[in-house]
Amino acid sequence: MLESELVDRIRTGRPLCVKAGFDPTAPDLHLGHVVLLEKMRQFQQLGHQVVFLIGDFTGRIGDPSGKNATRPPMTIEEIKANAVTYRKQVSKVLDPDKTVVRFNSEWFAGENSAMMIQLASQYTVARMLERDDFKKRFANQQSIAIHEFLYPLVQGYDSVALEADVELGGTDQKFNLLIGRELQRQYGQPQQIVITVPILEGLDGVQKMSKSLGNYIGIDEPPSEIFGKVMSLSDELMWRYFELLSARPMMEIQRFRQQATEGANPRDFKVLLAKEMVERFHSTNDAERAHAQFVARFQQGIDPDDIEQKDIFIQQSGIALANLLKDAGLVASTSDAHRMVEQGAVRIDGERISDSRQEVVAGTSHVIRVGKRRIARISVLTHSTQ
Amino acid sequence: MLESELVDRIRTGRPLCVKAGFDPTAPDLHLGHVVLLEKMRQFQQLGHQVVFLIGDFTGRIGDPSGKNATRPPMTIEEIKANAVTYRKQVSKVLDPDKTVVRFNSEWFAGENSAMMIQLASQYTVARMLERDDFKKRFANQQSIAIHEFLYPLVQGYDSVALEADVELGGTDQKFNLLIGRELQRQYGQPQQIVITVPILEGLDGVQKMSKSLGNYIGIDEPPSEIFGKVMSLSDELMWRYFELLSARPMMEIQRFRQQATEGANPRDFKVLLAKEMVERFHSTNDAERAHAQFVARFQQGIDPDDIEQKDIFIQQSGIALANLLKDAGLVASTSDAHRMVEQGAVRIDGERISDSRQEVVAGTSHVIRVGKRRIARISVLTHSTQ
Repeated sequence: MLESELVDRIRTGRPLCVKAGFDPTAPDLHLGHVVLLEKMRQFQQLGHQVVFLIGDFTGRIGDPSGKNATRPPMTIEEIKANAVTYRKQVSKVLDPDKTVVRFNSEWFAGENSAMMIQLASQYTVARMLERDDFKKRFANQQSIAIHEFLYPLVQGYDSVALEADVELGGTDQKFNLLIGRELQRQYGQPQQIVITVPILEGLDGVQKMSKSLGNYIGIDEPPSEIFGKVMSLSDELMWRYFELLSARPMMEIQRFRQQATEGANPRDFKVLLAKEMVERFHSTNDAERAHAQFVARFQQGIDPDDIEQKDIFIQQSGIALANLLKDAGLVASTSDAHRMVEQGAVRIDGERISDSRQEVVAGTSHVIRVGKRRIARISVLTHSTQ
Repeated sequence: MLESELVDRIRTGRPLCVKAGFDPTAPDLHLGHVVLLEKMRQFQQLGHQVVFLIGDFTGRIGDPSGKNATRPPMTIEEIKANAVTYRKQVSKVLDPDKTVVRFNSEWFAGENSAMMIQLASQYTVARMLERDDFKKRFANQQSIAIHEFLYPLVQGYDSVALEADVELGGTDQKFNLLIGRELQRQYGQPQQIVITVPILEGLDGVQKMSKSLGNYIGIDEPPSEIFGKVMSLSDELMWRYFELLSARPMMEIQRFRQQATEGANPRDFKVLLAKEMVERFHSTNDAERAHAQFVARFQQGIDPDDIEQKDIFIQQSGIALANLLKDAGLVASTSDAHRMVEQGAVRIDGERISDSRQEVVAGTSHVIRVGKRRIARISVLTHSTQ
């Protein structure tokens, strides 16, 4: 139903106002935000007006219940500083010239206390208690302060103030986004279309990625941090990240996954993902360097700049490690390769290899080391993947 | 517990701030308010500072849910006009020179919308749902708009703004009064002592007296209206009114009641109450005149000013009607009296009498008519009641 509404709205031909709300207290954007920002970017590319909304009004109040001592009211200076940081980071995904940054204090700060009563009259207690977390806390007799019922209304009213056509948010925001839709109806406006994007799990693979849980990959982190954190993902979680974050065609990701089930080392794909993330938020050079540094971390004494880059072209979708080592000139022969592996002298991306028949997949890139001296950054290429 | 707190507070020796809140939309004070005003008057007589608080802040918002079309926002002019009316009426009970009238818009109108969020953070959803009417409506799945949770907090905050020592209200206000007490604690103030007075039933004897139900006796109503409305009370309800409103000693009221169970006509006591109410809000003359008019309404063609006043002194607590008629000169003899009653020619306060042995109680006053011509306003007095 919302899909057909969206189609109708787009058909009007005018640029739509596409809103997404962000917390003023956490100016470090991470990959969890990127899932959303990517969707914003798509609207932007289609010519629509994207509004990056900073919910500073409630941030300025802090935690009024005083129960959360770690959340004192933010000053206007802090909020402005965060906004600058946000804008800088957002520019890595969105077109900064086409992105409007707004603050909800613009419309709330000037409002009288009576306005909040008006707003509160637009929604019922029973319906608010339908929200998942309220429902659970109420059932478990955990206290809900009354102002917590006002926050979703404040957020919803932002859509009224902006006359939003579309609001984007995580699936966990669905309830709040729909309140915006309802308030618009009550204020006599066309109702926004609500689009939710999946929630990205953090590094632990369980909790939602968030700064406060420390399980995040910030888009402003140094290349080596981004690279290393992606490499720390479990194999299963890696595929989730591929799906939600990679710009690669879904077909290709499915092929990777198929290859992994058929014996290819998941680590190779992880390196691809890690490099793609570094490339996106930094540069191709940074990605190469981060890869080398990651390996060097496990193999002390090597200056990443000293590692030679070699491209190996193959005809098939993969190549046996022994053959790769020989083609790259790291060993004299495949039997030399088998012997070195047996001796535990061969490492791929810092990981000691025990099976010289292991296949290295086309389209991947690795730092491979044989013994103490022989090392190279090897990209395995086919004509098809190039 | 609150009683000992009150004693302690009074012992401080300073004049206490005694708050009672009134609705700005209903400037007609009625006997239901008088129960409360009497309690205020007592504090006033003891030298405390009584604050007559008009809750105009929420009145200016109107019914924000828009569900009650009959409650549009009030203008400042309407509220001011109501305040003038209130002050005039209140002067009939309270000492106008010692009564401070305040408006809660004084502190709320200047507050930012953030203030309401702060306030809402001071109380939990679960505790608000403990309030009787919320509990019932929630259980019955009747909708409660979220702003309804804010009103008790607004009312409670008034106590913070006034630094109230005591708040008076009807028993149905107990929950709200206690919120004021709790908010004061959270705002670091000594907590007000809460005193509740019984709720007076309206003329119907069932519902709380209220203007909107039309079951009220307004203290600004003309003498004849007040008189007539008291006379319309059921006998049972009359005793309730005696207890809550009459200035007569409780012993005397109990004696009246005893006499009624022993055969005295409850109507006679009702006349006493009706006259007392007219006297309190108008004058003794008005009370006498209202009594006469009430009777005249049932006996067309008589000008109340033409009715002669007679005082009959008796030795006992009552006198048989036949004797009274003879002593007052309305009949020639007691047998004449018996005959006139038998013919249906005798009326007391407009009511046709069928029993000439009926006792008329000392301390009461009646308009008695015999036939078409003979009529008198007769007060039955003893030396003890004078």
